[in-house]
Amino acid sequence: MKHVVLLLSCQDRPGIVAGVTGWVAKIGGNITDAQQHTDHHDGMFFQRVKFTPPEGVSVTDLESKFRAVANDLKLNYQFCTLPFRPRTAILVSRHLHCLSDVLSRVQLDDVPIDVQFVASNHDDGREISEMFGCRFIHLPIEAGAATRLEQEAHLSRLLDKQSLDLVILARYMMVLPKHIVEPWFGRMVNIHHSFLPSFVGANPYRQAHDRGVKVIGATAHYVSEVLDEGPIIAQDVVDVSHRDDVAALTRRGRDLETTVLAAAIRAHVEHRVLMFGNRTIVFD
Amino acid sequence: MKHVVLLLSCQDRPGIVAGVTGWVAKIGGNITDAQQHTDHHDGMFFQRVKFTPPEGVSVTDLESKFRAVANDLKLNYQFCTLPFRPRTAILVSRHLHCLSDVLSRVQLDDVPIDVQFVASNHDDGREISEMFGCRFIHLPIEAGAATRLEQEAHLSRLLDKQSLDLVILARYMMVLPKHIVEPWFGRMVNIHHSFLPSFVGANPYRQAHDRGVKVIGATAHYVSEVLDEGPIIAQDVVDVSHRDDVAALTRRGRDLETTVLAAAIRAHVEHRVLMFGNRTIVFD
Amino acid sequence: MKHVVLLLSCQDRPGIVAGVTGWVAKIGGNITDAQQHTDHHDGMFFQRVKFTPPEGVSVTDLESKFRAVANDLKLNYQFCTLPFRPRTAILVSRHLHCLSDVLSRVQLDDVPIDVQFVASNHDDGREISEMFGCRFIHLPIEAGAATRLEQEAHLSRLLDKQSLDLVILARYMMVLPKHIVEPWFGRMVNIHHSFLPSFVGANPYRQAHDRGVKVIGATAHYVSEVLDEGPIIAQDVVDVSHRDDVAALTRRGRDLETTVLAAAIRAHVEHRVLMFGNRTIVFD
Amino acid sequence: MKHVVLLLSCQDRPGIVAGVTGWVAKIGGNITDAQQHTDHHDGMFFQRVKFTPPEGVSVTDLESKFRAVANDLKLNYQFCTLPFRPRTAILVSRHLHCLSDVLSRVQLDDVPIDVQFVASNHDDGREISEMFGCRFIHLPIEAGAATRLEQEAHLSRLLDKQSLDLVILARYMMVLPKHIVEPWFGRMVNIHHSFLPSFVGANPYRQAHDRGVKVIGATAHYVSEVLDEGPIIAQDVVDVSHRDDVAALTRRGRDLETTVLAAAIRAHVEHRVLMFGNRTIVFD
Repeated sequence: MKHVVLLLSCQDRPGIVAGVTGWVAKIGGNITDAQQHTDHHDGMFFQRVKFTPPEGVSVTDLESKFRAVANDLKLNYQFCTLPFRPRTAILVSRHLHCLSDVLSRVQLDDVPIDVQFVASNHDDGREISEMFGCRFIHLPIEAGAATRLEQEAHLSRLLDKQSLDLVILARYMMVLPKHIVEPWFGRMVNIHHSFLPSFVGANPYRQAHDRGVKVIGATAHYVSEVLDEGPIIAQDVVDVSHRDDVAALTRRGRDLETTVLAAAIRAHVEHRVLMFGNRTIVFD
Repeated sequence: MKHVVLLLSCQDRPGIVAGVTGWVAKIGGNITDAQQHTDHHDGMFFQRVKFTPPEGVSVTDLESKFRAVANDLKLNYQFCTLPFRPRTAILVSRHLHCLSDVLSRVQLDDVPIDVQFVASNHDDGREISEMFGCRFIHLPIEAGAATRLEQEAHLSRLLDKQSLDLVILARYMMVLPKHIVEPWFGRMVNIHHSFLPSFVGANPYRQAHDRGVKVIGATAHYVSEVLDEGPIIAQDVVDVSHRDDVAALTRRGRDLETTVLAAAIRAHVEHRVLMFGNRTIVFD
Repeated sequence: MKHVVLLLSCQDRPGIVAGVTGWVAKIGGNITDAQQHTDHHDGMFFQRVKFTPPEGVSVTDLESKFRAVANDLKLNYQFCTLPFRPRTAILVSRHLHCLSDVLSRVQLDDVPIDVQFVASNHDDGREISEMFGCRFIHLPIEAGAATRLEQEAHLSRLLDKQSLDLVILARYMMVLPKHIVEPWFGRMVNIHHSFLPSFVGANPYRQAHDRGVKVIGATAHYVSEVLDEGPIIAQDVVDVSHRDDVAALTRRGRDLETTVLAAAIRAHVEHRVLMFGNRTIVFD
Repeated sequence: MKHVVLLLSCQDRPGIVAGVTGWVAKIGGNITDAQQHTDHHDGMFFQRVKFTPPEGVSVTDLESKFRAVANDLKLNYQFCTLPFRPRTAILVSRHLHCLSDVLSRVQLDDVPIDVQFVASNHDDGREISEMFGCRFIHLPIEAGAATRLEQEAHLSRLLDKQSLDLVILARYMMVLPKHIVEPWFGRMVNIHHSFLPSFVGANPYRQAHDRGVKVIGATAHYVSEVLDEGPIIAQDVVDVSHRDDVAALTRRGRDLETTVLAAAIRAHVEHRVLMFGNRTIVFD
């Protein structure tokens, strides 16, 4: 590891910054970046401290050394390391632009993830996945609820078995059941093709067209049990007009979806995201 | 009048553009701008034709000359004139930035309206209104439903008596009853301080903060009977972050509200807006 | 051909719209889209008329039928057809994201071009090109002016021999000589990684960083003889801050470059761009 | 004073954050916000620490207490206080929208400055200034260089005599001489009506039109001796098209100018801007 990132949150009180940064100095670490945020309304303090650890010190060492400070200041905290190259699964359905974009970024070293496999309820994504050298797993859903349950069970086992760090829903159009979503909370990122909370659910570009909005958007968020309600990591928007029919909105939204998803993955992988309730703090 | 604007809509069929522009040429008008839009999904055609009329011809003349063409092509149409300087009422409550901004634009010849009066359920807007030389009418609502009904009746009479062309709700925070809204449909513009359809109703900045969005917006729309559901004329957005608390969102939204409202007023006054169902065509 | 696009420009005078649209109606064509622009300052009129031609009529027929109208109205004009799938060459150097993005869009039917080959002064682009099934031609430049002239001659012959319709410079970092640029004027699109006219030439992200700008951009333009001076087709920008060093600007600019280049290619291929002097009219 | 803001910069080295925040904790201050930035390329460290000082302690006290720490860590630093309501002069010429906007924001408590006077080389701004209760000083320039020198001398004395903290050039169209600019470096903010470094100097909207750009911008910067070359505080942009002639660009740029200028004033007044060479660090 080259850097350690310490993410912490706690009730705001005097002395936290001095306490934490003093501790890093004391153990011989060198802070290369520190950002903090105080939520005055909720009385909460959040911080991300990135530092070069002294040589030969492991994360376990750091955790044990930090325990006293953390107890003293009543911190929730987590030590992460950089560079981080998470073992990642990508789920996709029939719209392949987000898949293609993520795989292209991985190939060009723009997004540092290791794609273990791509899984899909359709076979459409096979060609692109294999072209980029990724294993593709087809998990079809045949008619009937039993089969859907079986497919979900299959998917669940697949995710569990691979020691994954991250799951990306790159336009996976099936709602995942609670038993799959829950264990991955905070490590499963979805791209939704609207500016949430507008146009939850199916066909958001159709919904946007029917409402006559002049701006459309895309939203990347951690998946929670309630559809399209999880903590938002990144959003972006683009102006549209009456000239854009549903097909044009879909095409224009495509570029939003890929860039917003990439921004969210990058923020996650760089340990820049803290969750607080249903919101996120995303340090720059 | 220097220019005539002909706004029309009809079911799409061959020959409309040729028919309409041919008619303008035939009567000796000179087209200085023409824009059209075909909604292929709904099979509708929309056009705005701006032309210099032949000398000495009135709008009534034009309308009678055009009738045969319009019947032939089954057009819905409307002749408007430019420059247009609508007699305007502004309604406001306690947030005064939109009022101040509109009055400043009028003073600097940036928005061509004649403000007949400013009316408010609070007295806060008096100083600014009078500073800009506008009549201010305080229409307080005292406790009790009867008084609210009385205030609405008063407001309704006020709007009716003044031969107004346009009503601007510049952060007027009372929901208007159907009997006021209905006769002004298409001539009453509201600024809502969110990116509709997100965050309908009260406290949208609070709602936006609680949902943790990364972009906020403002929406100017024609007022319809259902709150915040009318046809959208203009929207704009700005990036925000976890650092923006409700007060910061409110402050940052302020600039969106003023510019979006001004854009919508300008589009309306220049006869660039056509309504179709709950959507608008806003020509550039 | 499904549609014909008639692009025209001329000195503004009464009767053009009626004349042109009347002609389309007369020959039995059905206008599905028409957009026009009058440049009042320069007294010029520009129009794009898209229509379904009567069955069995060729472009040559249309041209001969239109000649009288065009002479009468003194029009510069051009008939194009849709769908248009230009035979295209892509030139690239060592930054591969634009190449990868264009090829991915072609694969996903997002941009309708037929890539005949990818050529480069470096071998880096071979893997991606061949992965997408494109022929890759390595045109190295060895030391010495003679060799550069030879490489340019080679490139020139390559472009000439292939009956190409379009050349895309997807981050090709060599300045092309006049004898290559001139014959391709209006059919050679370059992506420049700055918001032109800021930061012409080499290392624009370094230049942007040194000037301390708060917004960076990308520009797609037709290539003319003067470096980075050709008519601009599309531009877009993104906010940056002091936190973005040159590497971060480069990474953030990447998404601008790909989307701006794609927008420009799409506008060109849909026959939506007219040039006037060093400016463009880009119809929506 | 409610808060103290400590702005500091120095060569980057270990222990600065711990040293500074530890010092605040030691004297009994409570940090309510801290932001830092490390410029790895230039090896520089920048920080803004906002804290509630212990009761009864003055800025002079703080400075003397801090001296040892500052010497130890070799810091450049500055203590500021909040709220800060700078004594401000506004210079303007004939375009009045920025003046009107700033005065309106002051009236609505959106920008905390005390306007001591408005000065202008034209009399146009008198009405608006006096309407908002501000003193207006007309400093005409008659023909001839001698008179221009006299006017500049007059202006210089005026700025010197008023114990001003801030000078805002709200579309003041005269280039100021070095002897006026120099003493105000870092406290004189100009709004330039282009996206600098594009279109330096006169008539930027005309320049933008002639170059055919698809985006225009506005730039607020500290004034330095070289025209339009000072450190940029804020920029923003808006999409334009071939439909926007110079008048339309001017009108659309107007909203950019007002919001960008207000953002820059607010950043300055909240002590969020640090200069480094010709760049700025603007903390959120």
